[in-house]
Amino acid sequence: MSDNLLEQLTKALCVLPGVGPKSAQRMSLHLLNQRREAGLHLAALLEQAMQQLLPCPSCRNYTSLEVCARCLVCEQGKAICVVETPADLLAIDATGYKGFYFVLHGKLSPIDGIKPENLGLEILHDKLKENPPQELILATSTTVEGLATAYYIAEMAKMFKVPCSRMAQGLPFGDDLNFFDTGTLRYALQQRERMA
Amino acid sequence: MSDNLLEQLTKALCVLPGVGPKSAQRMSLHLLNQRREAGLHLAALLEQAMQQLLPCPSCRNYTSLEVCARCLVCEQGKAICVVETPADLLAIDATGYKGFYFVLHGKLSPIDGIKPENLGLEILHDKLKENPPQELILATSTTVEGLATAYYIAEMAKMFKVPCSRMAQGLPFGDDLNFFDTGTLRYALQQRERMA
Repeated sequence: MSDNLLEQLTKALCVLPGVGPKSAQRMSLHLLNQRREAGLHLAALLEQAMQQLLPCPSCRNYTSLEVCARCLVCEQGKAICVVETPADLLAIDATGYKGFYFVLHGKLSPIDGIKPENLGLEILHDKLKENPPQELILATSTTVEGLATAYYIAEMAKMFKVPCSRMAQGLPFGDDLNFFDTGTLRYALQQRERMA
Repeated sequence: MSDNLLEQLTKALCVLPGVGPKSAQRMSLHLLNQRREAGLHLAALLEQAMQQLLPCPSCRNYTSLEVCARCLVCEQGKAICVVETPADLLAIDATGYKGFYFVLHGKLSPIDGIKPENLGLEILHDKLKENPPQELILATSTTVEGLATAYYIAEMAKMFKVPCSRMAQGLPFGDDLNFFDTGTLRYALQQRERMA
C-alpha cells in the first residue's frame, strides 16, 4: 500500500501520450526527489494553459490572447497556410515560413461525422471573401481525408478567385528509395523535375 | 513565433525524465486538443504532491500524513527492509512483503560527500536501539556504494544484536547465462544452491 497522493499523481501522469504506469512512477519520484520547484512551476503552467489557451477566432490556433499574435500583425494580402493541427503549424513554422495560418483541428471525414462546419471552414470562407490573401497554401496531410479536405478548400478558393497551391508531393529527404511505397514512387516518377 | 504560454508549458514538461522538446510538444498539444479536464486534474495533483509529500519522520518514505500509513500500524518486532529510494520500496512492495521499510534516499559515497547523516542513519540507529525489529533486511543496490552502505548498516545491527540479512545475490530470472557479467556468474557458481 503506497501513499495515496503519490499513487494519484502517478495515475494522472498516465494521461500524457507515451507515458505508462512505470514511467509515470519514475516521473513522480524524480520530481519529488529532486525537482519540487520545477514540479510546482509545471503545475502552475499546466493549469494556466488548460484554462487560457483557446482557439484564436481568426486562425483557430491556440492563443491566450483575444486574437493571436500572428493574426494581430494583420498585413492584408499575405499567404494563408492551412494545416490540420497546431503541431503541423509548428512544423511549418520551423521552416521559416512567415505568412498566416489557418488551423482546421481535423480533416473532413464523413465516416467519423467530421463535416466542413466542424473544421471552422465558415471562418476561412469569410476570410477568402472579405480579406482575400495573396495565396492559399494547403498543407493538409497526404492521407485520403487530408487530400479530400484539400480539394474541398481548393473549390472554395476557386469560388473567390484566390490562388491556391498545395505542398509538393514526392520523395522526402534522406532515405533510400526502396523504403518508399509504390504510390509515392509512381507519383515522383510521373512528376519528375527537369534538371538539365 | 508560437504562443508564449504554449512554449512555456512545453519547456516546463521537459523537466520530466525521458521527455525531450519533441515529446513535450506532443504532450502539450494532446492535453489542449483532447484532455483539458485531465490536464487540470494533473496540475492540481502535481501542486498538491510537490507541497504535501514529505519524508515520514519514522521511515523517510514520502507521505502526506504526519506519520505514514505503514508506520502507523506499529507492530513492534516486525522486520524493517532498508532501501535506497522510494522507487525501490515500491518494487519490494510489489513482491508482497508486509514488513516496515526504511528509505535512505541515497547510498554512502564519500567521493560525492554522502555520509551516514545524509541518509538519516541516526533515525535507524535510534530505531534499532529503542524498538528493535525482529530482523533488518538490507535491500540496497548491488553497486560498490550500495554494498558499502549495507556493510555499514550491518555493523549497526550487530551493535544492537538485531539479526540482519541482505537480499540473495545470484542470477536473475528469465535470461540466458551468457548475458550476465563474469562477477555475477562467479558468485552464483560459488554460492550454488544444493538441489538433491
